[in-house]
Amino acid sequence: MQSTYYKQLTATKLERAHTRIKPYIHQTPVLSSQRLNALAGASLYFKCENLQKVGAFKMRGASNAVFSLAEEERAKGVATHSSGNHAQALALAARLAGIKAYIVMPENSPKVKVAAVKGYGAEIIFCKPTLQAREDTLEEVVARTGAVFIHPYNNYPVIAGQATAAMELFEQAEVALDVLIAPVGGGGLLSGSALAARYFSPSTTVIAAEPAGADDAWQSLQAGKLIPQAGPHTIADGLRTSLGDKTFPIIQEHVKEIIRVTDSEIVEAMRLIWERMKLVVEPSAAVPLAAIMQSKERWAGKQIGLILSGGNVDLENLPF
Amino acid sequence: MQSTYYKQLTATKLERAHTRIKPYIHQTPVLSSQRLNALAGASLYFKCENLQKVGAFKMRGASNAVFSLAEEERAKGVATHSSGNHAQALALAARLAGIKAYIVMPENSPKVKVAAVKGYGAEIIFCKPTLQAREDTLEEVVARTGAVFIHPYNNYPVIAGQATAAMELFEQAEVALDVLIAPVGGGGLLSGSALAARYFSPSTTVIAAEPAGADDAWQSLQAGKLIPQAGPHTIADGLRTSLGDKTFPIIQEHVKEIIRVTDSEIVEAMRLIWERMKLVVEPSAAVPLAAIMQSKERWAGKQIGLILSGGNVDLENLPF
Repeated sequence: MQSTYYKQLTATKLERAHTRIKPYIHQTPVLSSQRLNALAGASLYFKCENLQKVGAFKMRGASNAVFSLAEEERAKGVATHSSGNHAQALALAARLAGIKAYIVMPENSPKVKVAAVKGYGAEIIFCKPTLQAREDTLEEVVARTGAVFIHPYNNYPVIAGQATAAMELFEQAEVALDVLIAPVGGGGLLSGSALAARYFSPSTTVIAAEPAGADDAWQSLQAGKLIPQAGPHTIADGLRTSLGDKTFPIIQEHVKEIIRVTDSEIVEAMRLIWERMKLVVEPSAAVPLAAIMQSKERWAGKQIGLILSGGNVDLENLPF
Repeated sequence: MQSTYYKQLTATKLERAHTRIKPYIHQTPVLSSQRLNALAGASLYFKCENLQKVGAFKMRGASNAVFSLAEEERAKGVATHSSGNHAQALALAARLAGIKAYIVMPENSPKVKVAAVKGYGAEIIFCKPTLQAREDTLEEVVARTGAVFIHPYNNYPVIAGQATAAMELFEQAEVALDVLIAPVGGGGLLSGSALAARYFSPSTTVIAAEPAGADDAWQSLQAGKLIPQAGPHTIADGLRTSLGDKTFPIIQEHVKEIIRVTDSEIVEAMRLIWERMKLVVEPSAAVPLAAIMQSKERWAGKQIGLILSGGNVDLENLPF
């Protein structure tokens, strides 16, 4: 299994992905906080994907997938099922490409998310709020329209797009990073980041941070095979998904370790980012900092990159 | 009165201030949001001083005041009375210069603010929570220590330091700004911004935004003389102070207009910045955007710079 992805995700393919999506994404800033560095005892470089279009790194992968399509594929549009950041990202990327997007969303999705997807001009198809209904509905939509299904993470062009956040971070940080920490849910961002490090910053160790209440990636690495997440329970709603068969082998080969953190550690880290860095981040984005704060001795004096994956939160329902 | 300040605040003095403080401040990013631009119907360029050291533009003025001191003044240190961002800024600037800072604070100041000032190594002198007690205590401290009083805004080196935010914004924005909007409290940021525009971007019109519940600047401009604020009532706690005799003449001469906004307009603008830009800003920082949203037709198609003055809020007491 491990051997197949290389052809799809060479250094050249990652560089081409970056060139391809640059006109459509923000080169987000890398920010540091001296007060936070003092607290952590290490030098932290935060790649601010919460400031990305649609408020999350998902815009990178969606853009690369959309702008990689062949002419005849573009004519029929793209489709996905998601109520999260990928839905908005795909809708916006499709609009920028001037093609159709079909988004399957559970009928109980938050109104604000439905409005956002609609605002980007996508066609929404509602379904019952079960995974089975989502997949069935998506299948119908694809059969009916001929649209290309763009999976939120188990898709090579998506992984290549997500890799560009780490590629930029390596360029933007003023130092050689000892460590890069990314959160892991389905593994699109993590596998992309791991390949980016391998190709463009080989001295950087890539580590993942995962909520203890949705630790399928940790379980899978331990077992040496994919173990899907059953009944995830974590405030980090972006990380409740399971690894896919495309992301897992990359992670297995290139990620050194997965650190699990509790929800209270996540909320504490989120508060630090809001208070010290003045950045609105969603719980999932705080997971890497939670991993640092959990065992500070270990990171003392290190140069550490962290990806702030997104900033989409409901201000009416904050955990503090 | 108008004629005196020019010698203290020439273009060269402002440029020297910038050179002087550059090693001690962040060149904060200028961010834009396409979604917010679409909502406003104009192109908005936000200078993110909420990402400045100590979380506010105050670090600029305090640094310039501290690093402008003569050798014999530095030996005796600096003093101020403040429980706000200026206290932290002066404490940090003094620490960076290796000199003493004496901060007079009301005895009922929030613990977190006292801890922050202490954390920067300043000596805190508590007083009764009245303006008279603050001023008397400060006078005692200055008499006893010989420290130089650094007023939070009615001070030329402070004004020159605050001017550097707008100077950077003019450089960083990719376009010539039609308008620059700054919030006004004591007028340090506003008078500095107005001079920066006059010297370095003369085609930019400078406009101020002020809470309706603390509209002494508006009143003063109308009356043609200083009218101190009596009983301010606004959520924008950084803007409750009155103009000073050094800031008023500059504002009178170079600020075209002052727009007043209500507290509910401020909270609505603050929510937009949090939700759309993913930035933590304090209510005072949202006042310029509130002025835009109040009468959108007026700004249609314009290139507008706004200074996000700070990001120090209490996460336990948010207005949404």
